[in-house]
Amino acid sequence: MKQKQVIQQLLDKAVVQIDGSQPGDIQVHNDGLYNRVLTEGSLGLGESYMDGWWDSVQLDEFFSRIHSANLDDTVVDKRLIYNALKARVFNMQNKRLSKRVAHEHYDLDTEFYEKMLGPSMQYTCAYWKRAQTLTEAQEHKLDLVCQKLQLREGERVLELGCGWGGFARHAATKYGCSVVAYNISSQQVAYARRWNAGLPVEIIQDDYRTATGEFDKVAAIGLCEHVGYKNYRTLMETVHRTLKRRGLFLLHTIGNNKSVLTSDPWFDKYIFPGGMLPSVAQLSTSMDGLFVLEDWHNFGPDYDRTLMAWYHNVNLHWDEFKSKFDERFHRAWHYYLQSLAGAFRARRIHLWQVVMSKDGILGGYEPVR
Amino acid sequence: MKQKQVIQQLLDKAVVQIDGSQPGDIQVHNDGLYNRVLTEGSLGLGESYMDGWWDSVQLDEFFSRIHSANLDDTVVDKRLIYNALKARVFNMQNKRLSKRVAHEHYDLDTEFYEKMLGPSMQYTCAYWKRAQTLTEAQEHKLDLVCQKLQLREGERVLELGCGWGGFARHAATKYGCSVVAYNISSQQVAYARRWNAGLPVEIIQDDYRTATGEFDKVAAIGLCEHVGYKNYRTLMETVHRTLKRRGLFLLHTIGNNKSVLTSDPWFDKYIFPGGMLPSVAQLSTSMDGLFVLEDWHNFGPDYDRTLMAWYHNVNLHWDEFKSKFDERFHRAWHYYLQSLAGAFRARRIHLWQVVMSKDGILGGYEPVR
Repeated sequence: MKQKQVIQQLLDKAVVQIDGSQPGDIQVHNDGLYNRVLTEGSLGLGESYMDGWWDSVQLDEFFSRIHSANLDDTVVDKRLIYNALKARVFNMQNKRLSKRVAHEHYDLDTEFYEKMLGPSMQYTCAYWKRAQTLTEAQEHKLDLVCQKLQLREGERVLELGCGWGGFARHAATKYGCSVVAYNISSQQVAYARRWNAGLPVEIIQDDYRTATGEFDKVAAIGLCEHVGYKNYRTLMETVHRTLKRRGLFLLHTIGNNKSVLTSDPWFDKYIFPGGMLPSVAQLSTSMDGLFVLEDWHNFGPDYDRTLMAWYHNVNLHWDEFKSKFDERFHRAWHYYLQSLAGAFRARRIHLWQVVMSKDGILGGYEPVR
Repeated sequence: MKQKQVIQQLLDKAVVQIDGSQPGDIQVHNDGLYNRVLTEGSLGLGESYMDGWWDSVQLDEFFSRIHSANLDDTVVDKRLIYNALKARVFNMQNKRLSKRVAHEHYDLDTEFYEKMLGPSMQYTCAYWKRAQTLTEAQEHKLDLVCQKLQLREGERVLELGCGWGGFARHAATKYGCSVVAYNISSQQVAYARRWNAGLPVEIIQDDYRTATGEFDKVAAIGLCEHVGYKNYRTLMETVHRTLKRRGLFLLHTIGNNKSVLTSDPWFDKYIFPGGMLPSVAQLSTSMDGLFVLEDWHNFGPDYDRTLMAWYHNVNLHWDEFKSKFDERFHRAWHYYLQSLAGAFRARRIHLWQVVMSKDGILGGYEPVR
C-alpha cells in the first residue's frame, strides 16, 4: 500500500480528509509529508508543518478529531507499518532536552508574551465560567485560586514557580497576603520584582525545592508540568515541609489521561523542553500519606478557549514581530497553540486544580467553582 | 514503666485523660485494659470495650482526638514498648475473615436497619449541605448522585451493589430511568425487588463482575469498601466494559489518607469482614488509562453527622431489640458507629464521590454540589 493510502485510512477514522475542505481536513502541499510522518512520527508531523508542507483550515479541529478518534488506542491493522505509525506519531519518546530551543522559547521578548497573554501576563489556563474576555477570565482564575485557598488578610503564602508574578500581586493587593515566590527564570524574576515593587512580595530566584519557612497556604500554578515525574514526590514533600498543619495547598496543572514517563518529541524540542504531563495516578501516588485530598476540579475545556484566545492575539499582533521571528517560528507557534487546544477539546488532556490540606480541614472543605 | 503510664503518656498527646471527666476522656473499669491493648492492639481495644472494661462520655470524641493527634505517625519514644503499641493499636493486620460474625452482622433483622437508617434505607453517607434531618439528607444524597450523573428520562443505568434498592427506586421514580442492579445479599435483593415492584428496575443476585450490557450511566454507591484492593482494577474494567462512550460513572466510597492493603482487625472481625478503604492513589492507579477524572468531591464530615444520626436512632429504639441482641452487641454497635464518626471528624478517613467519564464529556463536565 502506498504511504498516502496508509495515512488516509488512519485519518478516515478521525473523519479527516486529505485535501478536503472541511475545518478539520488537511491540505498537503508536499507529498514528502507521508514518508516523513511514517518515519519521524510526531516530530515529523510538526516539523513538516513548520516547513509549510501541509495546512489545515482549522488546525485545532484537526487535532481534536485525531485525539477524539483515539487513534493511538485503535488497533487498526496488524501490518507493521500501521504499528510503526502508531508508535511514532502518538507514543512519547525519551525526552531530549534542547537547551538551544529552550533558550529560543523562554528568552523570547517579554513584549511578545505581553501581546499574546494580555495585561494579566498569565501563562496558564484562564477560568471562563463567568467571563467574556481573556482578561476577565484570567482575573477570575486568580480569584478562584485565592478563594479555593481561603486566603485571609495577613496570611503568608508560598508560591512555587511564579511566572511574571501575577498571582503574587493578586494575593497581595486583593487579599492582603504576603507572598514568597520561587522562580528560576531570571527574566521572569526581574519582571515579577518590578511588578510587585512596594508590595509584601519576595521573589526568590532559586529552585522550588530549596523553599524553607512555614506558610499558611501554598500555591503551585503551572509548575508541575515542568518538574518531571521523578520529582512529583519531591514537590509534594517540599509543600508538606513548608505548610502549616491544617493549611491548604493548591496545585494547578495540565494533566494526562494516562501515566507516561516521556513527553511528545515535537513539544519537547520546540516548546517545553523536559515538559511532562502528570496523570491522576502519578499525582495521587506522590501525595499518598502526605495530604488529604479536599477537591479535584477539572476544567480542561477552559484551556481550549484560553489557547484560542492566545492564538487570536498572536495573529492580531504578528506584524509587529515580523522582523524578529521568521515564518517557521510563526507556524510553530500556530501548531503549538492549536494542537494543544485540540487535545483539550477532545478531552485527551485536562486542566486540574487540586486542593490538598495537611491533616485535613476540620469540619470539611467547601469547594468553590 | 507501668503499662498504664505508657498508655497515659501516649494519650497525653491526644489530650485524653484516663478517668477524666471531659467528653473525650475515658473511664477505666478494669485495669486489665492496659495489658490487653498493649498485647492485642486495636482488637483488644474494641473487644475490651464490648466487655465493658472501659467507657467514654463521648466515644466519638475520644476517637477524633486519637486520630487528630496522629498517634500512629508520631514517634513518641525509642523504647520498644511504644513501638509495639504503635504497631498494634494503629497499624492494620492481615485481614481475618470471620464468616460467623459476617453472618451475625449481615443477617441482622431488616427491622433493625429500618430503625437505624430510617425510611430511606440508605446505609451510606448522607448529604447534609441543605438538610436538617437524616431523611432529608439521604434524599439529597440520592438527588446529588442522580444530578452528578446527569440522569435523563429513558436512560439505562447500571448499579453495582444496590443495598435495599433505594437508589434504583429514586432513579426510576424521580428521573424516569430504567435500572439494572447487582447485589449478592439475598436478603437485600428480596427487599429491593419488593420495594421496586412495578418499576423498570431489575435486581440481579450476582457478583458485580458478571455485569453485561451497555449503559448510559453507572453508579457504585458503597460497593468499593467491600471489594478489596486486588479488585479495584477489575471494578473499573467492569464499568469501562458496560459504559457507553462519553457516559458517566459515579463512585461513592469511603476513602483513606494512605494506601493500605489490610483492614482494622476489630472492624474486620465484628463489622465488615474483608472490608478495606481505598486511597486516592489506589483508586486512580486502577482508573489509569480507562477514565477521564471529571470531579472528585470529598464530603467526609457529612459521614460523621450521618453516623451520629444512626447512633441516635439505635439508642432511641434499643429497647425494642433488647430481646434479640445482648449488651455486648449493643456496645459493639456503639463502638462501631462512634469510632468511625471520630475518624471522619479527625479527617483520617473521607467520603468521596468521584465522577469519571469514558473518553471525556465534550465541552466539559459541570460539577454539582
